[in-house]
Amino acid sequence: MPVYKAPTNDFAFILNEYLGLDRYGDVPGFAEARELAAPLLDESAKYCENVLFPLNQTGDEEGCTYDNGEVRMPQGFKEAYAQYVQGGWASFTCDPQYGGQGLPEFLNMPMTEMICSANLSFGLTPGLSHGAYNAIYLHASDELKQTYLPKMVTGEWSGVMCLTEPQAGTDLGLLTTKATPNDDGSYALEGNKIFISSGEQDITENIIHLVLARLPDAPKGVKGISLFLVPKVMVNADGSLGERNGVNCSGIEHKMGIHASSTCVMNYEGATGWLVGEPHKGLRAMFTMMNAARIYVGVQGLGLMEVAYQNAMQYTNERLQGRALTGPAQPDKAADPITVHPDVRRMLMTQRVNVEAGRALVMETALKLDLAHRHPDEQVREEADHYVQLMTPIVKAHLTDLGFEMASLAQQCFGGYGYIKEYGVEQYVRDARIAMIYEGTNGVQAMDLVGRKLAYKYGKYLKSFMHPVSQFIEENKGNEAMAEFTKPLYVHVGHLQQASLWLAKSGLSNPNDAGAGAVEYLKLFSHVAFAYIWARQAKIAMEKLASGEGDAKFYQNKLDSARFYMTRVLPNVVSLLMNLTGGSKTIMTADLTYE
Amino acid sequence: MPVYKAPTNDFAFILNEYLGLDRYGDVPGFAEARELAAPLLDESAKYCENVLFPLNQTGDEEGCTYDNGEVRMPQGFKEAYAQYVQGGWASFTCDPQYGGQGLPEFLNMPMTEMICSANLSFGLTPGLSHGAYNAIYLHASDELKQTYLPKMVTGEWSGVMCLTEPQAGTDLGLLTTKATPNDDGSYALEGNKIFISSGEQDITENIIHLVLARLPDAPKGVKGISLFLVPKVMVNADGSLGERNGVNCSGIEHKMGIHASSTCVMNYEGATGWLVGEPHKGLRAMFTMMNAARIYVGVQGLGLMEVAYQNAMQYTNERLQGRALTGPAQPDKAADPITVHPDVRRMLMTQRVNVEAGRALVMETALKLDLAHRHPDEQVREEADHYVQLMTPIVKAHLTDLGFEMASLAQQCFGGYGYIKEYGVEQYVRDARIAMIYEGTNGVQAMDLVGRKLAYKYGKYLKSFMHPVSQFIEENKGNEAMAEFTKPLYVHVGHLQQASLWLAKSGLSNPNDAGAGAVEYLKLFSHVAFAYIWARQAKIAMEKLASGEGDAKFYQNKLDSARFYMTRVLPNVVSLLMNLTGGSKTIMTADLTYE
Repeated sequence: MPVYKAPTNDFAFILNEYLGLDRYGDVPGFAEARELAAPLLDESAKYCENVLFPLNQTGDEEGCTYDNGEVRMPQGFKEAYAQYVQGGWASFTCDPQYGGQGLPEFLNMPMTEMICSANLSFGLTPGLSHGAYNAIYLHASDELKQTYLPKMVTGEWSGVMCLTEPQAGTDLGLLTTKATPNDDGSYALEGNKIFISSGEQDITENIIHLVLARLPDAPKGVKGISLFLVPKVMVNADGSLGERNGVNCSGIEHKMGIHASSTCVMNYEGATGWLVGEPHKGLRAMFTMMNAARIYVGVQGLGLMEVAYQNAMQYTNERLQGRALTGPAQPDKAADPITVHPDVRRMLMTQRVNVEAGRALVMETALKLDLAHRHPDEQVREEADHYVQLMTPIVKAHLTDLGFEMASLAQQCFGGYGYIKEYGVEQYVRDARIAMIYEGTNGVQAMDLVGRKLAYKYGKYLKSFMHPVSQFIEENKGNEAMAEFTKPLYVHVGHLQQASLWLAKSGLSNPNDAGAGAVEYLKLFSHVAFAYIWARQAKIAMEKLASGEGDAKFYQNKLDSARFYMTRVLPNVVSLLMNLTGGSKTIMTADLTYE
Repeated sequence: MPVYKAPTNDFAFILNEYLGLDRYGDVPGFAEARELAAPLLDESAKYCENVLFPLNQTGDEEGCTYDNGEVRMPQGFKEAYAQYVQGGWASFTCDPQYGGQGLPEFLNMPMTEMICSANLSFGLTPGLSHGAYNAIYLHASDELKQTYLPKMVTGEWSGVMCLTEPQAGTDLGLLTTKATPNDDGSYALEGNKIFISSGEQDITENIIHLVLARLPDAPKGVKGISLFLVPKVMVNADGSLGERNGVNCSGIEHKMGIHASSTCVMNYEGATGWLVGEPHKGLRAMFTMMNAARIYVGVQGLGLMEVAYQNAMQYTNERLQGRALTGPAQPDKAADPITVHPDVRRMLMTQRVNVEAGRALVMETALKLDLAHRHPDEQVREEADHYVQLMTPIVKAHLTDLGFEMASLAQQCFGGYGYIKEYGVEQYVRDARIAMIYEGTNGVQAMDLVGRKLAYKYGKYLKSFMHPVSQFIEENKGNEAMAEFTKPLYVHVGHLQQASLWLAKSGLSNPNDAGAGAVEYLKLFSHVAFAYIWARQAKIAMEKLASGEGDAKFYQNKLDSARFYMTRVLPNVVSLLMNLTGGSKTIMTADLTYE
C-alpha cells in the first residue's frame, strides 16, 4: 500500500545545476561520474523501487529471528542482497585495486538515500560494511587488505563495527574487551559487545568484525584502545573459508523499529583477530571513517523523510474530507481533497523544504568529501575538508532529528490511518527514531560541533561555511528579485555569528554554558545552512524561469519552497538564539536527583 | 524494569496551594472533596502502581487477540478491571441518583493521570466509558438512563463512542450508517464503524455503543446525524442480560502502539438501538461531552510525560558515562552519572517544566469544569465555562504534542537502551503518538481555537485567560523578586495579543491566513499559559521559602523550574509569532499535486 518513487528529478537538478560540478572538470573521476550519473541513477532507482521497497513492510512485520547462535533475516532479504552483490552496488566507491569502481561519493549518495527510503533495515548491512571497508582500507596491513577487501568490495562478505559494551557507549574509554597476543602475530579476543548491527545474519558468507579491545599493556581510558579484525569464519591461505572463529551471537534485541536489522549481542571467546593500525590507536583509526559513517546516518534521516513525504502527498491528495475555507474546491464530489486545508498544506510544505534542503546538504557534503580526497590543489582539498569537518555533525544530527519529526508530520497528515501499520507511515517514524541515537547521539554531535569544530583554530572550520555565505550575499546585493532571500539570510547569518561569539566567550569562562546551548546552536546553524541552500536554489530557479528553459513547474516549486522556508521556518533561529543565550545557570543549579 | 511512582507531592501542592480551593468553600461538594483528597489519592496511587503498571509492558507485548468476532484482552487485564470496579473508581464523578459518588472533576483528574501513566491502554476502556455515561446522562430519556446508567456507573458495563466510518473521520457529515424506525419505538441500525476503541473486549458483561447514524428522512451533512444507544447484549425488562444484539466486531487494527487497547471495526447488522436526544441533533449531543473527552486525551499526554520523565530521571542518575565538563564529579567511580552533562540536564528540565505545568493546567481546567457546573453564582459559572471552552483545545493539543515530544526526549536520555523494548520508554513514545490524532487531530484543535474560541463574541472566551494574567502582572508590579517572572510574562503576553489581533484581522480578509497559522497560534498560546502557571508557582514557592515552612527542596525545585521555563522555553514564542505572521501566501500558492 505505501508508495515510493525515486526522486530522480531532484537528484538530476542537484547534480547538474546546484553542485556546479563543471567548476571541477579536472578532478580525477568527476567527468566519468557525470557521464555515468543518469544510467546509474536509473538502474539503482529500479532496484530500490522494485526489489527493496516491497520487502520493507514484510521485513518489519516478520523481523529477524534468533535461534541458537544463528540469525535469520526476513524472507526475501537473502535474494535481494544477492541482487545487490550481482549489480555491483557494493563496489561503487571502492578502490579499483581491490575490485572497486573508484567512483566519487557524490555519485554514491543518491543510491544510499534511495536504499534508506526503500528499506532502511536492509541497507544497514551494506552501509556498515562500507564503513568497515574504509577502516581496513585506511589502516590495515597489505596482507589483511589482500585477504579481506576483495570479497568485501563485491559484497560477498560484509563488515561490522563492534564498539559498544554494556558499560561503554558514548564513553568508549570504559570498554574492557581484551586482546592477548598469540605466538603467530594474531591475537585472542575475549569480551562482549552489544548493539552490533548485522553482527550476525544469514545473507553473506562471512562477516568481518572490527572490534575495539585492549592489549595487555594498554593504558586506561581511550588511549588504550586498539582495533582488531576478527572474521566470523577463518580464511584459509588460498582465500577459501575455513573453520568458525570464536565469534558468537548470544541474542538479538527487540526494538522499537528497524526490525529487519539484527541488533546483536556478540561474544568473543578466544576469537582470533589481527591488529588494524597501531597499538592503542584504535579509536583514532575508527574515527578516520567516522565522518563518512555519520553522514551515512544523516542520509537515513533524509531517506525516511522522502518516503514519508511521498506517502503523505499521495494520501492527502486522495483523501476527501471537509471543504476549503474559501468554498468548495470540487463541488461535484462529496468533499474536497484535504490538500485544500492550509494546515495540511503547511505540514506538506514543511516536509518538502526539509527533504529537499537536506538532500542538497548531503550531496554538497559528499562532493566536499570527494574534493578533500581528489582535488589536485592542496588548498581546495584543505578547505573542502574543513567544510566536511564542520558540517558532519549538522548532517548527522539535523537530518536525523528531521527524519523523525517529518515522518511524524507525515503520519499526522494521515489522521487515524497514520497509526495503523498497514499504511506504512508509522514504520517510518519508528525506524527514524534510532538514527537520532546511534553513531553518537545528537547531543554528542552538538558537543562535537561546539566543542571541537567551532573552536578549531579560531574558527577555521567555521569560515568554510561563513565565507561562501557572505560572498553569496555580497554578490546578490544589487539583485532586487533576490532580496526576499538574501535579506533574511543576512539577518539570520548575523544571529549565527552572535551565537558563535556568545558560545566562544561564555564557553571559555563556563564550559557548561557551551554544553547547555550546544543542541540549540546546532539547530540554529542547521536552519541558516538550509536557508543558504534555499537562497541558492531560488536563484537558479529564477534564472531558469526567466530563460523559459526546462520544466517551469519544477522551478516554480523550488521558488515556492524557498519562500516558505524563509517566511515560515527560518525565523525559528530567533528563539533558538534566545534560549541558547539563556545560559546554563538554571540548568546546572537545579536538583535532578532521582529518589 | 521501568519505574512509576505517583507524583503525590505535586498533586497535593496543586490541590492545597496552587488551585486556591479555599476561595470556593461554599461550592457544593468541594469541602468533602478536599477532605477525601488525601486518602483517595493514596488508594488510587497504590492501585495504579501495583496493579496497572506491572501489566503495561506485558499488555503491549501480548496485545489484543481477535478470533471470530471475539476480542481477548491481554492476560491480567480482566482481573485488574474487576479490581477497578470493586474499588468504585468508575463511579467517582457520576450522579448519586445512579449510584455515583458525585465528586468533583478536579479530584478525579489525579486518578485519571495516574492511570494514563501506569497503563494507558487499560485506561481507555473506563475512560471512554465515562464519556458515554455523560452523553447518556445529559441526553437520553429517563427510561434509558434507568436501564443503562447504574451498571455503567459501577463499571460492570462499559460504553463506547462510535463516530468514525472509513470515509468519515474529521468530516462526520459524510457518514452513512442508517437507522430505520421499528414499530416499538426502537430503531434498526445498519452500517460499519471503524477505529472504535474498546468496541469489543472480554472484560465487561455488556458494551453500550453510542452510534452516530442517519434517520431515513435525515438532511445531508452534519445536520442529519442522530445519536443511538445500541447495546451489545440486549437488556431484559428486569435488568438481566438477554440475547446478543446485531453488533459484531469484524476485526481489530494492528497499530503503532496502545496494543492492549482493542481498536475495532464494528458492524451493525439490523442492530436494535434507541434514539438519544433529538432526531438530527446527534452531533450536538456528542459535542456537549466533547470538552471533557478532549481534556481526557490531554491527560493521556500528561500521564505519559510523567512516567517517561521518571524513567529518564532514574536511568540518567544511575548511568555512569564520561566526566563533567568542569572535572570529575565522582572521581572514585569509573565515570560520572550522566546527569552531570548540561545537555542531559537540559533534557530532564525540559521534561520537568512541561510535566508540572501540564498538570497544573489540567487540574485548573478541571476545577473550572466543576465551577461551571456547581458554583452558585451564575457569573462565576459563565466565566468558568468560558475558560474551559478556551483552554480545551490547548489542553488536548499542547499536552499531547508534548506527550510525544517529551517521551521522545526521555528516550533520548537513555541512549541506545531507549530503543530497546525491555527498558519501556519506547512504548511511551509509541503510545503517546495516537493522542495527537484521535478525538480531533491537533490541527483540528488549533482550528477550533482560532476559528471558534478566539472569535467567540469579540474575544469573550479569550478574556477569561487574559484578564487574570493582566491582573497577576499588575498585582506583582512592585514585587522586585518576582520581576524575573512577570517581565517575560508581560513581554510574551504582548506577543500573544499581537498574534490574536493579527489572526482576527487577517482571518477576516483571508481565512487561509488563520488556517495556516492556527497550529503556531495554539503553541504560542500554550507557551504563555505555561509561563503564567510557572510565574504563579514561583510566587508560592518564594513565599514558602521565605517563611521557612514546608519542604524547602520541593519549593526550590519549583523556583528553578520556573526560571528554566522563562529563560529557555518561553522565548519560543518569538519565532512562533514570526512564522505565524508569515501568512498563508507561500502555503496556498504552492503546487502540492501528487503525480
